[in-house]
Amino acid sequence: MTSNEKSTDFLYGLNEWEIVEKSFRPDKNDHHETVFAIGNGFIGMRGSYEEGLDKRGYKGFEGTFLNGIYENGVIRYGEIGYGYPERSQTMINVANSKSIKLFLDGETFDMLSGELLEYRRTLNMKEGFLRRNVIWRSPKGKEIKLEIERIACFSRKSIAAIRYCLIPLNFEGKVKLISELDGNVGNSASENDPRVGSGLENDVLETVITAAEEEFSALVQVTKRSRLAVACLSKEQEEEGYCPQIVRGTGNSHVETVYDFVAEKGKPFSLIKYIAYHAGCFPQETALGEAAEQLENAERAGYAVLKEENRLFLEAFWQKADIEINGDLPLQQAVRFNLFHLLQSVGRDGKTNICAKGLTGEGYEGHYFWDTEMYVVPAFLYSCPDISRKLLEYRYHTLDKARERARQMAHSKGALFPWRTIDGEECSGYYPASTAQYHINADITYAIKNYVEATNDLGFLKAYGAEIVFETARLWRDLGFFSEEKDGQFCIHCVTGPDEYTAIINNNCYTNLMARENLRYAWETAQWLEREENRCYGELKARLGLEAGEITEWKEAADRMYIPYSQKHGIHPQDDCFLEKKVWDFEATPPEHYPLLLHYHPLVIYRHQVCKQADVVLALFVLGHLFDKETKKRNFDYYEKVTTHDSSLSACIFSIVANDIGYCDKAYDYFIKTARMDLEDYHGNTNHGIHTANMAGSWMCIVNGFAGMRALNGKLSFAPSLPKAWEKLSFKLSYRGCRVKVAISRRNAVYELLEGECMTLLHRGEEIQLSKDQPVTVEW
Amino acid sequence: MTSNEKSTDFLYGLNEWEIVEKSFRPDKNDHHETVFAIGNGFIGMRGSYEEGLDKRGYKGFEGTFLNGIYENGVIRYGEIGYGYPERSQTMINVANSKSIKLFLDGETFDMLSGELLEYRRTLNMKEGFLRRNVIWRSPKGKEIKLEIERIACFSRKSIAAIRYCLIPLNFEGKVKLISELDGNVGNSASENDPRVGSGLENDVLETVITAAEEEFSALVQVTKRSRLAVACLSKEQEEEGYCPQIVRGTGNSHVETVYDFVAEKGKPFSLIKYIAYHAGCFPQETALGEAAEQLENAERAGYAVLKEENRLFLEAFWQKADIEINGDLPLQQAVRFNLFHLLQSVGRDGKTNICAKGLTGEGYEGHYFWDTEMYVVPAFLYSCPDISRKLLEYRYHTLDKARERARQMAHSKGALFPWRTIDGEECSGYYPASTAQYHINADITYAIKNYVEATNDLGFLKAYGAEIVFETARLWRDLGFFSEEKDGQFCIHCVTGPDEYTAIINNNCYTNLMARENLRYAWETAQWLEREENRCYGELKARLGLEAGEITEWKEAADRMYIPYSQKHGIHPQDDCFLEKKVWDFEATPPEHYPLLLHYHPLVIYRHQVCKQADVVLALFVLGHLFDKETKKRNFDYYEKVTTHDSSLSACIFSIVANDIGYCDKAYDYFIKTARMDLEDYHGNTNHGIHTANMAGSWMCIVNGFAGMRALNGKLSFAPSLPKAWEKLSFKLSYRGCRVKVAISRRNAVYELLEGECMTLLHRGEEIQLSKDQPVTVEW
Repeated sequence: MTSNEKSTDFLYGLNEWEIVEKSFRPDKNDHHETVFAIGNGFIGMRGSYEEGLDKRGYKGFEGTFLNGIYENGVIRYGEIGYGYPERSQTMINVANSKSIKLFLDGETFDMLSGELLEYRRTLNMKEGFLRRNVIWRSPKGKEIKLEIERIACFSRKSIAAIRYCLIPLNFEGKVKLISELDGNVGNSASENDPRVGSGLENDVLETVITAAEEEFSALVQVTKRSRLAVACLSKEQEEEGYCPQIVRGTGNSHVETVYDFVAEKGKPFSLIKYIAYHAGCFPQETALGEAAEQLENAERAGYAVLKEENRLFLEAFWQKADIEINGDLPLQQAVRFNLFHLLQSVGRDGKTNICAKGLTGEGYEGHYFWDTEMYVVPAFLYSCPDISRKLLEYRYHTLDKARERARQMAHSKGALFPWRTIDGEECSGYYPASTAQYHINADITYAIKNYVEATNDLGFLKAYGAEIVFETARLWRDLGFFSEEKDGQFCIHCVTGPDEYTAIINNNCYTNLMARENLRYAWETAQWLEREENRCYGELKARLGLEAGEITEWKEAADRMYIPYSQKHGIHPQDDCFLEKKVWDFEATPPEHYPLLLHYHPLVIYRHQVCKQADVVLALFVLGHLFDKETKKRNFDYYEKVTTHDSSLSACIFSIVANDIGYCDKAYDYFIKTARMDLEDYHGNTNHGIHTANMAGSWMCIVNGFAGMRALNGKLSFAPSLPKAWEKLSFKLSYRGCRVKVAISRRNAVYELLEGECMTLLHRGEEIQLSKDQPVTVEW
Repeated sequence: MTSNEKSTDFLYGLNEWEIVEKSFRPDKNDHHETVFAIGNGFIGMRGSYEEGLDKRGYKGFEGTFLNGIYENGVIRYGEIGYGYPERSQTMINVANSKSIKLFLDGETFDMLSGELLEYRRTLNMKEGFLRRNVIWRSPKGKEIKLEIERIACFSRKSIAAIRYCLIPLNFEGKVKLISELDGNVGNSASENDPRVGSGLENDVLETVITAAEEEFSALVQVTKRSRLAVACLSKEQEEEGYCPQIVRGTGNSHVETVYDFVAEKGKPFSLIKYIAYHAGCFPQETALGEAAEQLENAERAGYAVLKEENRLFLEAFWQKADIEINGDLPLQQAVRFNLFHLLQSVGRDGKTNICAKGLTGEGYEGHYFWDTEMYVVPAFLYSCPDISRKLLEYRYHTLDKARERARQMAHSKGALFPWRTIDGEECSGYYPASTAQYHINADITYAIKNYVEATNDLGFLKAYGAEIVFETARLWRDLGFFSEEKDGQFCIHCVTGPDEYTAIINNNCYTNLMARENLRYAWETAQWLEREENRCYGELKARLGLEAGEITEWKEAADRMYIPYSQKHGIHPQDDCFLEKKVWDFEATPPEHYPLLLHYHPLVIYRHQVCKQADVVLALFVLGHLFDKETKKRNFDYYEKVTTHDSSLSACIFSIVANDIGYCDKAYDYFIKTARMDLEDYHGNTNHGIHTANMAGSWMCIVNGFAGMRALNGKLSFAPSLPKAWEKLSFKLSYRGCRVKVAISRRNAVYELLEGECMTLLHRGEEIQLSKDQPVTVEW
C-alpha cells in the first residue's frame, strides 16, 4: 500500500490545508458529520447541515457537545457485584443551534429535492472554518447560490458563529429564513455496540428558560440527574441591504427567529448567527448570564474579527505544531487533519480532558481514557506543552475520586484512576476491560514524568505531579506482592493490560514494566523533593500521611519487579500464561468477523493468543531504552502475527516500533492506516466520532517513528528514516525552553535551533551541539 | 460444636417428624415462610399466614410458585458483549390462593393485635401438612380457637388445599370469612444481592379471566413475554352445621367468596378450600379447563382423602429414603426436614427440575444449576432413582438449546449446558461465574454415569444418556487442545471451576478431572453401543453426524488430560496459577465482611488464594478413587485453610472428605453446619428460600460421609465411622435392583438385603456376600 494513489482513491479532495467534499454524498452523511465537525475544545458541533437532512434512509447523528457536560444514568448489570460503578456518565447532545431553514416562495431548501448545480464543502484547517458552497435549483426552477460558513472560536470558549449568505440567481420573490435553537435533542447511543455506549434514558434535559428577545434568543436546559445547567443563546444580525420582517417566537424547548423579505435577483442577503453556550452548576441564571455576556462581546466584535481571531490562533498553533511532508499529499493532508481535530477536541482549562472520540460524536459516551496520557499528551508535549499540562492538571483535580475508588477496590492507601470517566468517577460497566486495567495509574505517572522532563516545569511537579506520582506508587505497592513462588520477585496479579483481548491475568508485562517506572519515579521524586524542596516535601508527606518506610518499599518493589521473559522464545510473554494459550485460528476467521469483539464471546477471545492491540509492543516503544534491537525484533515479529489491530490505538505503535527496528515498509504501511483512519473510515465507525488516540498516534508515527525521536536523560535523540515516497519531512519541537527544527530529506537531516541558546541532541547516538540559528546538517 | 445442645438453643422445637414453632415470632416471619413452605414438586407455597401479616416493620415475601413457570425479562449489561444472554427468566410469584381473612363482628383477625393465648405451627413431615393452632383474643375480648391446615398434594400435581376450622370460645356473633384468589402479586427480587436476582419489571401478569361461580372461583393470568397461561382456581366447601350466607365477587385481578354467619359459642365452623393450579402454553382456556377438572376431582375425593393420600405417599417415600439417627434429635430432625423439603421442591415430570432455592423463595430467580446433578441427583439416586432419572431427562429435553449455546460460544460441535436456566436457555448475567463454568457439562455426564451404574437402566442410556454424553464430550474436545507448552498434554483454558472466588483460569483441576471422566465415559459408551446396540448406535451416529475419528479423539484427550499437580506442595493446585497468588488475609477480615462477594470487588477476591467452596476438595470426593489417603489429606489441609464456605455447597463436601481421611470431629462439625443450615439460618438468607444442594448434601454427608458409601465398578462399598454423639445410624439403599439396609452402631455395622437375591458389597475393602433377609454383622 502506498498513499500516493490517484486522488480518486480518496474520499476527499487532496489539499494541503483543506478537506474538500466535492459532491453531495448523503450516503456518507454520518461519516461526513464527524469529519466536518468543528470545535474549540469546549464546544463541538458535528458537521450536520443547517437545514438538516431529511433522512430517507440516510444516516445522521445531529450533535452538539460541550466538553465535560454529561448526564448520569443508572448502570444496570446482568448480575450486580460489589464495587461496580453505579452511575453512568454520558456526554449529552445539547441544544442544536446550527439550525437555519430556508424557504423560497414556500419551497423548502432541501438538497435531496430539486437539483444541485454546485456543491462543495471545505474544512479549512489553516484558518479554522467550515464552508459550504451550493447552487441549488428548486423543483419549481428557482436557482439560488449559498455560501454558509461555520466557526467555533478557539479564543472564545463559549462562542460559535454561522454566516449564511444567499444570492437569488434567476428569480425574485419571497424568501424566508428560520433560525432556530432546538432543545428537542437526545443522544442516539446504541445498545448493541460496546464501543458506543449503553445509552441514556430519553429526555435527559428539562427546559427551564425559553426566550425570544431582540437582545438574544435563549434556551436554558438542565440535566435531570447531574444537575447541570446548559444555556444556549443566539443572536442574528443581517449584513446587507434588505429590510426583512423579523418575527420571534418560542415553542416547546424551541426558539426561532423568522426573517421574511422579498429577494431581488443577484442581490445577496447575509445573516450572521452568533451562538454562545455556557454550562455549569446551578443556578441556571448564572449560565444564562455568562452566555449572554460572551454573546454580546462576540456580536460587538463582529464575524470578521471572530474569523480573524481563529486564523491568528491557528497561525500560532501551526507555527509550533505543523508537520510538513513533501511529496506525499494524502499523508500531509491527513496529518494536519489529525492535529487540527485534536486541537478542536482537547480541553484546555484543566477541568476537562479529551474524549476518546473528541467532541465529534457519541462513541464511548464522551469518556476520557488512558488515550490522554499515552497518546494525546505526547502529541502536544513538544509543541503546546501548556495543553499537555492542562490535561494532567485534570487528573489532579480528580485525585480525590481516584482515592475513593482505591478504597472501594480494597486498597487501604493510594489512588486508582478510573478507566473511563468524565468527572473523575469510574463509570465503566465491564470491569475486566476497565477497572482491571490498573496500568492507567502508571500511564498517568509516565506522562507526568515526560512532561516534567520535557518542560523542566518543576512547579507543576511540586504542586500537582508529585502527589499523583506518590498516590499511584502507593497503589502499586498495595496491589502487588513479593511472591515466594517467584523467588521473592514483586508480582502483580489479576489485571488487564492494554490488550483487551486478554483479561484478568497475572504479571502483564507492560503493566509490570510501567508500574516499575511509576514506583521508581515516585522514589526519585521523593529523593529530589527531600533534597531540593524540603519544606514542600514535609507538607506533602504530612498531608498524605506518607511514611519513610513506604518510599523505601517503592524502590524495593521496583528493584524486584518481576518482568516475564521466555528463554525458549526469546520474547517477553504478554503475561504469565499468554504463551500457553492456543494461537487464534486466523485462517478460519472470515474478514467480516473482525473486530472479533463483535463476533465472539469474550471467553473465546481470552482463551486464545490473539491481541486487539499493541501491548508488549507498546512497551517496546515507550520503554524502548530497556530492550536491545534483537529483542525488539523478536517481540515485534511474534506479536505482529497474533495482533488484529481491532483497536484504533494499535497501528501507530506498530509503525513506530517497525521504524525502530528497521522494518521501514511495515512502518509506512501501518502509518497509512493510522494517518487516514478517520478520513477513509478504515474502522467503519468514524460516524461515532474521530479516533483521537490514533490521531495523536499519527504525530508519534512521524516524530517518534520516522524521525526516531526519543527524549531520555534530558536529551532529545533522533534516528531518522524517511519513507521512500517522501521528499522531505520537517517539524519543530520545544524542549526545555529550546525550540528545534528538524528537517529530514533524502540526502540529509538538518537540525536548527530556533529558540534557546544552545542544545545538545543525539543523532543516531552521536552528540550534536546546536547553537541558535546555526543549523547542523548531517548527510547520510 | 455439638448438635446435642439444649433445645432452647434451637429456633424450632425438636421433634423427630415435625418442625414446631412454639411461639409467634413475627421478627422471623420471612425465615419461617421458607421453613414452613409446602410443595409437591410443582406447586410451592411459602408459609405465609392465610390472613397475611400486617408488616409494621416485619419482613415477609408472600409467594406461590409453579415449577418451570417463569417470565422473561431483558438482561441489561453495563457493557454488552457478544454471546451474552439477552433474556432473563424468573420464576414468577403466581396468584395467591392461600388468602382467607377472618372478621369477628367487624374486628379483623390479626395476630399482631389483640392477644395470642396460644400459638403453635407445625410442619408434619411424616404426613405432609402444615398446621397452625391458635387461640386469639380480639381487642374487644372475643376469644376464638383456630386450626388451619394446609397441604400440597404429592399425588395430584395441580392440587393444594386448606382446612380452616374455627371455634368461638367465649362469644356468639357475626363471623365473616373471605376466601380470596389474589392476582395482584409480583416478585420482590432485590437488585443488590447477586444471590437473589436482577428482578423483573412489575406487572408481569395480565389477567385474562376472573370468575366467581358456584362451580369455582377462577383467575387466569398470562405472562406478558413468555406467554404462559396460569390458571388458579378454588372451590370452598363448608364442613359443619352452619348455613352461612355466601356472596361471590370479582375485582381487579381478584376473586373472593364471602361467608357470613352468626357463630355460636363452642360450635365449630370449618371451611375447606380446594385449590388448583395449571400452567402452560396458550390457549388460556386449556389451562382453565385442566385446572377445573383437577379441582373437581379433588373436591370429589374430599379433604380427608387428600390428606390420607399425602400420608401414604410419604409413607412410601420414607420407607425408601428415611435416615434414622439415634441419639441426636436435632440432626435427626434436620435430616428429615432436608429430605422432606427436597421432595417438596423437586420436579418429577422430566420437564422441570429443582430450583437452587426449591419452590420456597425467589432466590436465584428460581433457576436450575449444577446443584441438580452433583447434589440432588445423588441424594435421590439410591432411594428414588425414578426422580433422579426425571431430573436427567430434563437435561435431554433441553439438549437442542445447549447445542445452540455451544454454537454461540464458537464451538462448531457439541452442546454446552447453561449455568442457570429454567427452560434450558442460558440466562446468567455474569459469565465469569456462569458460562465459564463449563464443568456443568461434565457434571451432567457424571450424574448420568452414576445413574446408569446404580440402576442398570440401559434403556435410559440408549434413549437419552448417550446423546448427552457424546455431545458434552464433543464440546470438551473442541474446548481444549494438546498443548506444546505442556508436552502435548490436553489443556482446558479460560474456565471457572466450582469455586467462584477464582474465575477464568487455565486447567482448573476439578474441570480437567471431570472432563476426563466425561470423555472417557463417552468413549466407553460408544464402545458399548457399538458392541451391544449396534443399530441404535448407527442411528445415533447418523443423527449426530458423529465420525469414528471423534471417538478416538475423546479417548486421546482423556488419556492425555493435563492434571495440575505441585510437587513442592504435594497437592493439586486448583488451577495453573492458584498457588502463585497471595493468600487472602483472613486475620484482617472482620466477620461481618463475609460472604466476601458482598464486600469485595471480584478482582480483589480473584487476586487471592481464597475459595468460596470446595473445588479440588469436591474432586477428592467424587473421584476419590483416584487419590490416595495422604494426597487427600494434604489437599484437604491446604484448601481448608483458604476456604470461606461462603457457598452453601461447601460444608457438606468438606464433611464427607473429612470422614474419608479420618478427621472425624471436623466431619461432624461440617455436618452440623450442613444439616441445620436452613433451620438455623446459618447463611442468613433462608428467607430467600431453602438451599437445596446443601440439603441434598446432608444426605451425602451421612451416606457418603459417615457410612463412607461409594459406588464403584458395580459394587457398593462402605467405611463407616459413627460420630461419637450418635447411638446408631441406619438407612436403606437401592442398587441395581437390590435394596440393602445399613445400620451402624457403636459396636458394629449390620448389612441386610431387603430386596433382591444376593449382593456383594465391600466393608472397608473386604467383600461381603449378602443374601436376602440374612443380615451380616461386622463387629468393630
